[in-house]
Amino acid sequence: MATVLEPKKLQDEESTSNTNLIHLSNPHLEKMKGDILYHFDLGTETHDFPAMFGDVKFVCVGGSPSRMKAFTQYVAGELELGDPKDDIANICAGTDRYAMYKVGPVLSISHGMGIPSMSIMLHELIKLLYHSKCSNVIVIRIGTSGGIGLQPGSVVITSRSVDASFKAQFEQIILGKSVIRPTELDSELAQELHQCSKEINEFNTVIGQTMCTLDFYEGQARLDGAFCSYTEEEKMQYLKAAYEAGIRNIEMESSVFAAMCNLSGLRAAVVCVTLLNRLEGDQISNSHDVLVEYQQRPQKLVGYFIKKQLAKN
Amino acid sequence: MATVLEPKKLQDEESTSNTNLIHLSNPHLEKMKGDILYHFDLGTETHDFPAMFGDVKFVCVGGSPSRMKAFTQYVAGELELGDPKDDIANICAGTDRYAMYKVGPVLSISHGMGIPSMSIMLHELIKLLYHSKCSNVIVIRIGTSGGIGLQPGSVVITSRSVDASFKAQFEQIILGKSVIRPTELDSELAQELHQCSKEINEFNTVIGQTMCTLDFYEGQARLDGAFCSYTEEEKMQYLKAAYEAGIRNIEMESSVFAAMCNLSGLRAAVVCVTLLNRLEGDQISNSHDVLVEYQQRPQKLVGYFIKKQLAKN
Repeated sequence: MATVLEPKKLQDEESTSNTNLIHLSNPHLEKMKGDILYHFDLGTETHDFPAMFGDVKFVCVGGSPSRMKAFTQYVAGELELGDPKDDIANICAGTDRYAMYKVGPVLSISHGMGIPSMSIMLHELIKLLYHSKCSNVIVIRIGTSGGIGLQPGSVVITSRSVDASFKAQFEQIILGKSVIRPTELDSELAQELHQCSKEINEFNTVIGQTMCTLDFYEGQARLDGAFCSYTEEEKMQYLKAAYEAGIRNIEMESSVFAAMCNLSGLRAAVVCVTLLNRLEGDQISNSHDVLVEYQQRPQKLVGYFIKKQLAKN
Repeated sequence: MATVLEPKKLQDEESTSNTNLIHLSNPHLEKMKGDILYHFDLGTETHDFPAMFGDVKFVCVGGSPSRMKAFTQYVAGELELGDPKDDIANICAGTDRYAMYKVGPVLSISHGMGIPSMSIMLHELIKLLYHSKCSNVIVIRIGTSGGIGLQPGSVVITSRSVDASFKAQFEQIILGKSVIRPTELDSELAQELHQCSKEINEFNTVIGQTMCTLDFYEGQARLDGAFCSYTEEEKMQYLKAAYEAGIRNIEMESSVFAAMCNLSGLRAAVVCVTLLNRLEGDQISNSHDVLVEYQQRPQKLVGYFIKKQLAKN
């Protein structure tokens, strides 16, 4: 396979202008009469996108549908847009591929697990925002991860996503050829989120690199999968090398998320809590209640950030 | 990255013996006191695996939780083990990562979309079958796909899964290094399924190669994603080359499924309906009712196969 470094990149001017619209790099879409977002069960011929989504300023995405629903209910309370105990409708109720919720300017979507599931969601989300004529949108992934050298429950704000060789790149295969895309995230946004965490002052938060893998077991050097061909020493050597390279947590979606948000001119951040310290083990064995409390930390941080941003305007 | 062709492969004798147990290639598991299958919300210390799953002989997996529930209800009726209209409990109710249902010897599990989501599910499924001391288990993926050169609604039984370069291999990254695993599927099982389809005689079924991609849009040469850097001619050239190489459909999970079932000595098959003919378009625009009927075809075929197998014993 030939590897090509993709030349396309948004100009600084374009990406920071006041009317920062969605950058849709596909000439074929103009020729289409309508557009069916199959995995959302939404379409431009059947739904009024600008009316449904035109006011969206924040998109929050996470793996689990129930967690994204709980997040939307939490945000409804924080922004005084509704009672957090009220039920909230799933906009993608016609499919069980993804779940989508909206409260005021905040859209929340589940993305399932892994790069491909995130990628499908993002293609359809970016087109949704484009068709809805949204502007100045910030996208934040709130998720869970394995930490490296951090106390469990710590929150990591990703500076850049790296692959299993610790390189800040995402490999996209197009027509059987490899295309490399950069995976840096918005450093200003990361700093703003870090400042919010200092103001909340309830849990440890760091800015660090995040390793994104295609697998939870062998891909993350776990010893407890169905297969394992390496020793505990080799595992520890790999994880320690990752720590020394500046990696503070491991998850499975950040690289394609960073790459695709970069390509479409969306300011983006990844905020993940660490459920365990991988230098001390592989199994996630904390009690249900402790894990639930950990998972609320990125939600709390991002909810606080959104409230603060809206107060500015 | 160094690429290593993995030497491990089950001996023919081992994989066809009468007591075909699950082959768990991980020496570390023996040392663990208990095993938490985190994404199933099940564990050996909290659940009696042999009692819950010891009688499982068929595992059917598919992307969508609701489709796997509907399949289990259908099988309950076919095997006369229950009323297909009865509700059925989700064994993984404590999590929304995967859904799992059981009726008699048939276990059904959703796997989400994409290789990583399938991989996590399979690691935990293989360990579940091992801890449950199951033997002679057949695993079948029933799913949806894009067809190449076939009438929509046709069913493809996969001979082998190939990557975007049409090679029958799956690349697993372990400790940052590339490991290549074979993706052939059980040819005898494929023939048995094809024979069942002939007996049902209700829809077109072929045995062919299946291309497995990491992405639904650019990875499958679609023109309707958020980004597209190639022309319609280049797309058609790629898809026609795939057809000439023997590829009849494209989906996103078969390669890791074939590779992991091979490694654990599980007989495995992939049976997917084609929702559209990719030589004629990209959007899935058939009516909801037509798509639902298409999706029932692999269920019908596999339900028939299971019934026939059980009648033999």
